Amino acid sequence: MPELRKDPIVGRWVIISVERGKRPTDFISPSSQRKRGGFCPFCHGNEYTTPPEIIAFRPPDTKPNTPGWTLRVMPNKFPALQVSGDLKKAGEGIFDKMNGIGAHEVIVETPDHNLSLATMPIKGVEDVLWAYYLRLTDLKKDKRFKYVMIFKNEGEAAGASLEHTHSQLIALPIAPKIVKEEIDEAKNYYALKERCIFCDLIAQELESGKRVIYENKRYVALAPFASRAPFETWIIPKAHESAFYPPNNDFSALADILQRILKQIDRILDMPPYNFVIHTSTFSDEVNEYYHWHLELLPKLTKIAGFEWGSGFYINPTTPEEAAKFMKEAKI
Amino acid sequence: MPELRKDPIVGRWVIISVERGKRPTDFISPSSQRKRGGFCPFCHGNEYTTPPEIIAFRPPDTKPNTPGWTLRVMPNKFPALQVSGDLKKAGEGIFDKMNGIGAHEVIVETPDHNLSLATMPIKGVEDVLWAYYLRLTDLKKDKRFKYVMIFKNEGEAAGASLEHTHSQLIALPIAPKIVKEEIDEAKNYYALKERCIFCDLIAQELESGKRVIYENKRYVALAPFASRAPFETWIIPKAHESAFYPPNNDFSALADILQRILKQIDRILDMPPYNFVIHTSTFSDEVNEYYHWHLELLPKLTKIAGFEWGSGFYINPTTPEEAAKFMKEAKI
Repeated sequence: MPELRKDPIVGRWVIISVERGKRPTDFISPSSQRKRGGFCPFCHGNEYTTPPEIIAFRPPDTKPNTPGWTLRVMPNKFPALQVSGDLKKAGEGIFDKMNGIGAHEVIVETPDHNLSLATMPIKGVEDVLWAYYLRLTDLKKDKRFKYVMIFKNEGEAAGASLEHTHSQLIALPIAPKIVKEEIDEAKNYYALKERCIFCDLIAQELESGKRVIYENKRYVALAPFASRAPFETWIIPKAHESAFYPPNNDFSALADILQRILKQIDRILDMPPYNFVIHTSTFSDEVNEYYHWHLELLPKLTKIAGFEWGSGFYINPTTPEEAAKFMKEAKI
Repeated sequence: MPELRKDPIVGRWVIISVERGKRPTDFISPSSQRKRGGFCPFCHGNEYTTPPEIIAFRPPDTKPNTPGWTLRVMPNKFPALQVSGDLKKAGEGIFDKMNGIGAHEVIVETPDHNLSLATMPIKGVEDVLWAYYLRLTDLKKDKRFKYVMIFKNEGEAAGASLEHTHSQLIALPIAPKIVKEEIDEAKNYYALKERCIFCDLIAQELESGKRVIYENKRYVALAPFASRAPFETWIIPKAHESAFYPPNNDFSALADILQRILKQIDRILDMPPYNFVIHTSTFSDEVNEYYHWHLELLPKLTKIAGFEWGSGFYINPTTPEEAAKFMKEAKI
C-alpha cells in the first residue's frame, strides 16, 4: 500500500510508493518507456493488454475491452495510489501520514495513435471533456475522496511515459496544497470584497486586452500576469462557475477554445511538450461564490532548477504580453 | 529592467526578464550551452571573459581577474535581476509588481574543470562555504534586499548551463514563498510549544535512526520523512542555529558532511544531476528561537509532470528509509 506523508514544516504532502520501491540502479540508465513505432497498449486492437475499462465511448453492439471504441478510461496500470481499502490516518511522533487510498485513471483520448488533442476532430475533444466530467461525477460519490486532479502530460519531457495521446486523473483523500492555497486566497478576497477574485481578474484582463489570447461566447484564454513559464495559458469561464461542468450540457465552447490554444502552441512552438491541469472546487464545497474553476497549461520550455524549487520563485524569460501577441498572431 | 510580478491568487512571485525577452523560435531547438571539451569561461586563464570578480581567494601577489585564484565570485553574465537602481513598487489594478532589483552572482568553486564539490580537496569545500557566507554578509548591508537564496545546479538536467562546477546566489527584495511558508509554520509551532520544530524533528530522527544517513559532531544528514524525490537529503545543524554561519569560525564539519553526502550520491547514483539550496532566516530576523537553517539536496532522477506542479503533491517511488539505508551503505 502506498503511503501519504506530510512534511511537518511546509505542510506539503507526498505519495511514497512503497511497493514500486525503486533502487538506486533503477535511476542510472533512465531509458525512455516511449515506444515510437513499437507496441502501444493504447492503440485499437490492444485492449487486452490494459486493465479493464471503467467507461468507454463505443457503439452499443461492441463489447467492453474490444475494438470499436472512440475513447476509453482505465485504471492506471502502475497507479500512484491504491483504490481499495479504508482510509487510515496515523501519527508518527511529529509526523502525519495516511495510507495511500486514491484512484489513478487514464483517459485514452482516441484509438488513433497519430492524432493529438490539437489535431483530432473537435467532437473528440468534446468527448474527452465529457469523460473528465463523468469520471469526476462518479468519483465524487466515494466519500473517501476530497478532490480529483485531472491532468495531461504531453511529450516525454513533460513526463508522458507513452506517446499515444491520453490524460490522467488522480482522486485524492485530501485537497492538494496548491488548490487549497488558491481557495484560501479566493475566500480571503471574497471576505474583503464580496466578489470572486477570478471574476475581477477576468474583467480587468478583458478590458485591457493585452494578455488575452482568444475568447468565445463562454471562455477566455489568457497569458497570466505572473506567468511562471513562457506561453503559460489559462482558460477560464467568463461567467462565474465554481466547479468544472458543462453549462447547458454543452462542452462545445470549451472544446473550441482548448483545441484552438493547443493548435496555436503547436504552431508557434513546433509541438512542444506541455502539461495542463484543471483546478476546480473541492467536493465538499462545489457550489460557491468565491472560487472559479480554470485550466492551466504550461508548455515545457524551461528547466525548473535549484532556485525555482528552493524558493517557489520562477524566472520567466518571455513577457506574458509578448506571449499573448505571438499566440494571437499564430496562423492555425 | 526585469520585473517582479505577483500572482494575485496564490501569492507566487515571478521574475519576468523583459530585456532577455525570448521569442518562440528561441525555444524550438534548445541546444545545450554546455561545452564539453570546448571553451570554458570559468577555467583558469579565461578570467577576462567573465564580468569582473567581486571577491576571489587568491595569493596577495596576484591581480584581480588574472590567474592564480582558487575561488572566484562574479556577477552572473546573464542576471535574472538587476543590481542598480531603486526599488519601485506599483499596482496594476488587481495586480502587484516591482522592478527587478536584485543581485545574481556565480561562485566558481575551483579553477580546475575536472573537479567537483565531491572530488575537490576538503579545504576547497570549506572555501566554497566561506564564499557563501562572505557574500551573504556583504549583501545583507544592502537595505533593498530581504533574502539571499544560495543554490547549486549540477548537471544539465538540473539546469546547469555550464559544466565547470559552480554555485549561484540571488539576492531578493522579498522573501521567497517557500522560505516564508517554512518560517510561518515554524513560528506557529513555536507559539504553540515554545520549541523549534526543526529541533524536535532532529531529536526524533536521531532517536529512531531510520532516516539518518550520517552525523558528525555538529551536523546530521537525513532523508526527510516526506521526501519529495528519491534520495532527497537534508543537512541540518544539530544545535539550534537560526541562520547560516560558521560556528566558532569553522566550516570544517559542514564541509565534511556536505562532501560525504555528495560522494555517496555520486557513488550510488553514478554522478546524477542534482540541485541544492540553503534555507536560512530572513535578514530582518536572523537570530531567533523558531527557525533552523538547513541545506536541502535533491538528485534530479524523476520528472516533475502535470500532477506535481498542478497539485504541489509529489510522487516519490523510493521510501526515505530505503534511500537512507542505500546512502549509509555506499562505499566511498
